[in-house]
Amino acid sequence: MNIRKAVAADVPQILAFIRALAEYERAPHEVSATEAGLLRDGFGPRPFYDCLIAELDGQPAGFALFFFNYSTWKGRPGVYLEDLYVDPHLRGKGIGKALLQRVAAFALENGCQRLQWEVLDWNTPAIDFYRAMGAEFLDEWRNVRIGGEALARLAGAEAAQTLPTERAH
Amino acid sequence: MNIRKAVAADVPQILAFIRALAEYERAPHEVSATEAGLLRDGFGPRPFYDCLIAELDGQPAGFALFFFNYSTWKGRPGVYLEDLYVDPHLRGKGIGKALLQRVAAFALENGCQRLQWEVLDWNTPAIDFYRAMGAEFLDEWRNVRIGGEALARLAGAEAAQTLPTERAH
Repeated sequence: MNIRKAVAADVPQILAFIRALAEYERAPHEVSATEAGLLRDGFGPRPFYDCLIAELDGQPAGFALFFFNYSTWKGRPGVYLEDLYVDPHLRGKGIGKALLQRVAAFALENGCQRLQWEVLDWNTPAIDFYRAMGAEFLDEWRNVRIGGEALARLAGAEAAQTLPTERAH
Repeated sequence: MNIRKAVAADVPQILAFIRALAEYERAPHEVSATEAGLLRDGFGPRPFYDCLIAELDGQPAGFALFFFNYSTWKGRPGVYLEDLYVDPHLRGKGIGKALLQRVAAFALENGCQRLQWEVLDWNTPAIDFYRAMGAEFLDEWRNVRIGGEALARLAGAEAAQTLPTERAH
């Protein structure tokens, strides 16, 4: 097994992993990402994410995609893990744990004291796996999101006129 | 009322707001942020957050602190609102909504389709306020965090030896 930093040529594989993860998370219709967008946002002049690729016998086996967030309580950045995925046929070989370890090492190397992510409440195997490694579950915090037309409405009529709105949900 | 981008000279006020918000969130002991850290991370060569200050009659009345996250489903960045706070004596004047509107406008101006944040499950006034503006609550997602010694353990013995560990929680 080998874990390496993703490069621009990995974008098609990254998008395939994103789609496979959304399928597992029962939300395949939610994926509107494109190769062009992932290329621009991960490998352009202003990267919005970092990505690691796990390989087994030279073949892509999984990925981790993450970025910095910021804790005002700690007064320092943290790492937010957006996606962690291992090919279902290759699970149980420690690939997920190895990816998570590398992300944890990245966090410490960058002066972060926290690694955060989200898990679906029905994903018991993942929840057990995370608990076993000492993760905490912050269940009194509810996740809130505003998007599409509601976001444009909030931003004001001017913004709504100059930017495309999204008919989502 | 005036809303403006924070500058380095606002850091003492930002830290005061962070402490006041943590007090309201029943976690004042969680704040270990310092002025030096907030200055380095918000106004140095590599900014980790953006901050807006609301003023009423020339006095600081509240703040919003946020940064980019990334949606792999959308294939584009979003905005994550870490803190939103208005001085309790100045609530009910639309300051919180005005701050949120400016953050929403920032999101749209930067090509984001989503604004996300978290709210404590007992904070009913805030929950009602967010729902009224069209926000969704993503309650099937649980927030997970690993920090301190558990993070160092996960990263591996090597990282744990070279970096300071934290005795938290």
